[in-house]
Amino acid sequence: MSGWEGSGAPEHLLRALRAEPPLVQCITNYVAMNIAANVLLAAGASPAMVSDAAEAGEFAGIAGAVTINIGTLSAAFLDGMNAAILGAQAAGRPWVLDPVACQATRYRREVVQMLVAQRPAIIRGNASEILSLAGEASHGQGVDGRDTVAAAEDGARRLAQSSGAVVAVTGAVDYVTDGQRAVWIEGGSPFMPMNTALGCALTCLCGAYAAVTDDAFDAAVGALAHFAVAGARAHEGAAGPGSFAPRFLDALALVTPEALAGAVIRDASVPA
Amino acid sequence: MSGWEGSGAPEHLLRALRAEPPLVQCITNYVAMNIAANVLLAAGASPAMVSDAAEAGEFAGIAGAVTINIGTLSAAFLDGMNAAILGAQAAGRPWVLDPVACQATRYRREVVQMLVAQRPAIIRGNASEILSLAGEASHGQGVDGRDTVAAAEDGARRLAQSSGAVVAVTGAVDYVTDGQRAVWIEGGSPFMPMNTALGCALTCLCGAYAAVTDDAFDAAVGALAHFAVAGARAHEGAAGPGSFAPRFLDALALVTPEALAGAVIRDASVPA
Amino acid sequence: MSGWEGSGAPEHLLRALRAEPPLVQCITNYVAMNIAANVLLAAGASPAMVSDAAEAGEFAGIAGAVTINIGTLSAAFLDGMNAAILGAQAAGRPWVLDPVACQATRYRREVVQMLVAQRPAIIRGNASEILSLAGEASHGQGVDGRDTVAAAEDGARRLAQSSGAVVAVTGAVDYVTDGQRAVWIEGGSPFMPMNTALGCALTCLCGAYAAVTDDAFDAAVGALAHFAVAGARAHEGAAGPGSFAPRFLDALALVTPEALAGAVIRDASVPA
Repeated sequence: MSGWEGSGAPEHLLRALRAEPPLVQCITNYVAMNIAANVLLAAGASPAMVSDAAEAGEFAGIAGAVTINIGTLSAAFLDGMNAAILGAQAAGRPWVLDPVACQATRYRREVVQMLVAQRPAIIRGNASEILSLAGEASHGQGVDGRDTVAAAEDGARRLAQSSGAVVAVTGAVDYVTDGQRAVWIEGGSPFMPMNTALGCALTCLCGAYAAVTDDAFDAAVGALAHFAVAGARAHEGAAGPGSFAPRFLDALALVTPEALAGAVIRDASVPA
Repeated sequence: MSGWEGSGAPEHLLRALRAEPPLVQCITNYVAMNIAANVLLAAGASPAMVSDAAEAGEFAGIAGAVTINIGTLSAAFLDGMNAAILGAQAAGRPWVLDPVACQATRYRREVVQMLVAQRPAIIRGNASEILSLAGEASHGQGVDGRDTVAAAEDGARRLAQSSGAVVAVTGAVDYVTDGQRAVWIEGGSPFMPMNTALGCALTCLCGAYAAVTDDAFDAAVGALAHFAVAGARAHEGAAGPGSFAPRFLDALALVTPEALAGAVIRDASVPA
Repeated sequence: MSGWEGSGAPEHLLRALRAEPPLVQCITNYVAMNIAANVLLAAGASPAMVSDAAEAGEFAGIAGAVTINIGTLSAAFLDGMNAAILGAQAAGRPWVLDPVACQATRYRREVVQMLVAQRPAIIRGNASEILSLAGEASHGQGVDGRDTVAAAEDGARRLAQSSGAVVAVTGAVDYVTDGQRAVWIEGGSPFMPMNTALGCALTCLCGAYAAVTDDAFDAAVGALAHFAVAGARAHEGAAGPGSFAPRFLDALALVTPEALAGAVIRDASVPA
């Protein structure tokens, strides 16, 4: 049994999100800022890309959730991330971690361990990133993972158990676990990995869903289901990655709670 | 009677802009940089996103106008803003202020007051931002205003009188005033607030229009009319915010001076 | 005779690029980051926008090529550029220079001379930028060049000879030379200069091609041919710069090696 049924099901969360658009503070990379903001606006949330340490902590006090992405990491970004995390925790709000290319350099490996220790509610990454965080060998090259989601299933479960975070591994099929509950989510489009920073934008959408429920597992499943359903719908009629992009934003906006109820979510819990 | 008739009317300014594309130095936020540059290019101007203090002042000396946006504020951006403002003033060129989310944090409130004191030619914001600048209570949450343009009309007029700037309040219907003259501008599309940073891009377009006329009121009206006409045209056939975006850039480019003459601009001056 | 025939012809390089997508480290400006990443993904390469000095040098050791763009120059970017160049040279990998608006300010003029001295494999710019680098008077205003590619032909050849770099001058028709070999490349679309940062994205694509051949002349010709063919194809059916953009990304992805063999490339070598 998994937590995505009943009141925590994606369609109910989307209804809540659209009824009162949550303010999501996104500290994300320069590549992702524009598309992440457009994804949140299309989905129904209110993004704010406030990252400077001079105000990031104060702003987190009025945000419904904070998302942190290390894609274009720097000392200045890191100061803002730490301030925002403290602000979110002081306000009792969740924060979401996107460990972009965390295996690529020593700097990233050190920073990401420090961030994981600060109790994110959700960690969303590709298989290579999650395997690296779980302490296993990965085949990541740069920012594109080369491992399959299935190969990261065990690592994701152990990472969830050790970190206390819900772990979402995204790829052709997605896997979400809180260490006990687990689901596979199907859908999307092969044009999605050909559009830069859609994974980063999905992390921000996890923040939007986390702002409307106390269950981080439900939040991750909701955001991923929203992406999966919109991606599959946008794929129809798209000739390539370029024509996919506007269709995808349209689909994120046009997906109804009823359509989201049709998301393909399969139980992947391991019997105790 | 308002100043948007005769030689200062939008169609004449657009003709001047296309005859000799003005160089507009845009110090804007990371979310807006790409779409703002594309908006200026489509409209017919020449954007340059030069913001570092090491060159921002010198560059302002060759630009037709400077635009300043505090969306992703930082100490480094602020240094560049100050250098560019000084450079523009030394060259006798106008500068335009976009007070993004100026009510959200103490840092923004302090910085924006300092900027307003440096005599921008135009201030363009949403109703919540303008109400905050006018010293009134606003309902802004993050970067999305929750106040209506109509509610900001009095505040805008007083802000224009106190600051010496033309004030443009944008929303479903726009309001522009220099403290005496005032107009309402209708048009646009409900998909515009679902596309991030279009307001920021409009601020940059105000700079382009300010570079081709000495009357900042005419400039603001021209830029807003260009957006309103292009937005309404782009709305036709758009299925959502994603498919709206490329249509909008097309429309900005395809709008002729003759079409701009058909913009819906209503006198809103208060009888003395 | 030029080097773009035989094993170094564009179609063979594209085949190699798609068979094993090269990791390209792009230190580019804030305006270009998103579109450059999308261009590389569509073309078949793997972009990584890693620019901070804390990791840029280490990352260059795993990248197939590095690209450097001074569009939004700052001291922090410059530190990262120098680290990445050293890393690329230590790893024996090529790096590509984009001297955006290098004639506009003293800061840019100084920085770009220092960069040119560090032996880029390819320099790609517009005619005004290349004329400025060649020590000739240019008519560049801001980031948009006002000189024609033809006017920069002699300057490009001399710059190639003095710097040791292949020089690619792009415009309505492109010119590529290594100081001896030279070609003209035709194609593209008048909507391309109305889309911001496509030149910057092309510089990144030069890096992708440079990662799959040891001949920098072939690499530059391959990347420019890919752009020219995709641009011409995308122009069909585009109503303006906005609708051109998604078509262009589609076309970059859909161009086959066979189609690339049909690129219009004319020998422009000067008889010895």
